[in-house]
Amino acid sequence: MPREAPKPARMTLTLVALDQPTANFAAVFTRNAFPGAPILVGRQRLGAPSLGAIVINNKISNVCAPGGVETAERVAGEVGRLLGLDSTAVLPSSTGVIGWGLPVDAMISALPQAVAALTPGSALPMAEGIVTTDLYPKVRRAVVGNGSLIGIAKGAGMVEPNLATMLVYLFTDLAIGRDSLRRMLPRAVATSFNTISVDSDTSTSDTVALLSTGRVPCEDHDAFEQALTTVCRDLAEDVVRNGEGVRHVIRVVLTGSPSVEIARGIGKAIVNAPLFKCAIAGNDPNVGRLVQAIGKYVGAQSLALDLSRLRASIGGIEIFADGVFRLNPEKEAALVSHLRWAELYASAPSKDGVFAAPIDFPPHERCVQIEIDLGAGPHGATVHGGDLTHEYVSENADYRS
Amino acid sequence: MPREAPKPARMTLTLVALDQPTANFAAVFTRNAFPGAPILVGRQRLGAPSLGAIVINNKISNVCAPGGVETAERVAGEVGRLLGLDSTAVLPSSTGVIGWGLPVDAMISALPQAVAALTPGSALPMAEGIVTTDLYPKVRRAVVGNGSLIGIAKGAGMVEPNLATMLVYLFTDLAIGRDSLRRMLPRAVATSFNTISVDSDTSTSDTVALLSTGRVPCEDHDAFEQALTTVCRDLAEDVVRNGEGVRHVIRVVLTGSPSVEIARGIGKAIVNAPLFKCAIAGNDPNVGRLVQAIGKYVGAQSLALDLSRLRASIGGIEIFADGVFRLNPEKEAALVSHLRWAELYASAPSKDGVFAAPIDFPPHERCVQIEIDLGAGPHGATVHGGDLTHEYVSENADYRS
Repeated sequence: MPREAPKPARMTLTLVALDQPTANFAAVFTRNAFPGAPILVGRQRLGAPSLGAIVINNKISNVCAPGGVETAERVAGEVGRLLGLDSTAVLPSSTGVIGWGLPVDAMISALPQAVAALTPGSALPMAEGIVTTDLYPKVRRAVVGNGSLIGIAKGAGMVEPNLATMLVYLFTDLAIGRDSLRRMLPRAVATSFNTISVDSDTSTSDTVALLSTGRVPCEDHDAFEQALTTVCRDLAEDVVRNGEGVRHVIRVVLTGSPSVEIARGIGKAIVNAPLFKCAIAGNDPNVGRLVQAIGKYVGAQSLALDLSRLRASIGGIEIFADGVFRLNPEKEAALVSHLRWAELYASAPSKDGVFAAPIDFPPHERCVQIEIDLGAGPHGATVHGGDLTHEYVSENADYRS
Repeated sequence: MPREAPKPARMTLTLVALDQPTANFAAVFTRNAFPGAPILVGRQRLGAPSLGAIVINNKISNVCAPGGVETAERVAGEVGRLLGLDSTAVLPSSTGVIGWGLPVDAMISALPQAVAALTPGSALPMAEGIVTTDLYPKVRRAVVGNGSLIGIAKGAGMVEPNLATMLVYLFTDLAIGRDSLRRMLPRAVATSFNTISVDSDTSTSDTVALLSTGRVPCEDHDAFEQALTTVCRDLAEDVVRNGEGVRHVIRVVLTGSPSVEIARGIGKAIVNAPLFKCAIAGNDPNVGRLVQAIGKYVGAQSLALDLSRLRASIGGIEIFADGVFRLNPEKEAALVSHLRWAELYASAPSKDGVFAAPIDFPPHERCVQIEIDLGAGPHGATVHGGDLTHEYVSENADYRS
């Protein structure tokens, strides 16, 4: 297709260094059974005494490439040498095309310049440096007492974290011990990155890392964990909102479930159902496809779940109760209005039929709001996903990546 | 969008009647937990002494509509009255939009004409009558001794049977008893309709019914079951080839698996991975997305599966072995050629960016051939799926269905 690929033509190397290495860090990685080399290295780093720097490249993800771990370690070692750190204090991260090898010599040549460019201050350059098909950088911050927590994320495609997807880095100046961080992070991830799906694919490079510099005493661990959860949830929703081709964010609020797992499973089944996603893309409140997705999940899992008390609404409008649809022309019109209200931008092809997002910022934070009460228990979950659009297909089929 | 919807504007009512009701029939239905009313009725029919007719409508699937079962029974009862059959000898089937109620009075008014039009002979009018978004009718036939087996299918979208999807009707004149038919049909379905996926969605109306008129003695039950399996597999592949928006059929042959279930699960994960499906649509041999899909499934299922001996090829070209990719520019070019060779038609948007299939017949029966040897056991499976295209999105987002 005669159009410039939106993917980064050049690799960006992003370097983050703490003033002092910290023993207090946590990380969770992809459950994909073909993890990238940086994931293998990162898992080892969890046993290291301290972490002082993170080096991140985009364009090539260093997954299943010959000598991948050695390459990642060589880059980490060189960063350590330049910064006066042991190589085990450097976490390497990569994202991009799967299967290619890293251009390690070029990367090592570029490192001194990256080290010289290190400056204190805004996380925005880092958030900008790690993007691939993202339309804009994603940064979230929370204040806790006298300290704060800041997080950045990249996402866009191959996003159904298990956990977690994407690259997410969280930094706090609040003093929280390693063990506490490692208890809190998986809990925060469970209700944030593990409850989203852009396209049901699970990246081989997913990483969420959390580092505490410990400069500010933390008097309220609960408040910190709450802030951590909020930042993770906000970043997760940002990742969906900036998902490849996403023109509607779909928020499914499940209640009345016998378990959190079932609530999350049904929510994921809805946001992953291609026909429902296409209907949302077309501002078509095709409620039949919604019910199909619920029934598919419950049937495939052979759940002994009585669905006779299920109630469902979209945009606050009841559409299903007592085993039958509750629809009429007025409701249909209101549902269409709700979908149009939640649309991020209108779809428009170029002359050759290629579709590209015309935005480089999130125009609003509205969602298609779906509420489902299973009427079968006390548990619940909230899941976010996106629609399935021509922009997604153009992004992933019309270009060689 | 200013374009005529490809979906049937008018309902077609298709009636099939045997010369004599038969006690020898079998049927399997969707596992979706929101089955359509005809499925609920069909499950009851399995206990009926005999079956003599099938009445099928498209356009409206009669799922979760108020009074759906009563409506289905009214139509069946009227067919029975006109044909001199008990209403329990009539199997009703519906496919189309979920959530709407059947126009029962109009259907009953149309039935005498449908009865008058009953003629012996070709199954083609029946295969044509049951289509919705299908591009062409699907009929397959096998000869066994002096008798034969004929099957017809509709499919196109909401197709990941569990089991089975779609509407499939199989008729034989060979004399096979009810119990034998009911043993054979699930086995045939397991390796045919339950190994395909167009879009990972599971219809609420899936039905596969098999009726034996018993006119011809069957001397070789094994030969009959083999023929049944072949016809089911051919029809299943036809359904994928005519899947909504499908421009490449993907055939995944898994071997070396510890179980059939794992082989089938990995195959399904591959043909359901949106990023891989988009790459295939773009004739892009993005092998990283293939490995991602395998790793996602194995990781999400927490399988204790050693993937270090996995070998993979596409179009006979080895792409992965010993934990790393085996690629070079010559192989990449050969892979692109294989994908182009397997393409059913070239994609072309209309002026307004809407994509529609330019074919009304299957131009060839070639597949994107993926072979994966897990190197971890003696079992295997073959799975068929399709790519993810602009045509799929146009079909399901650009029109109100």
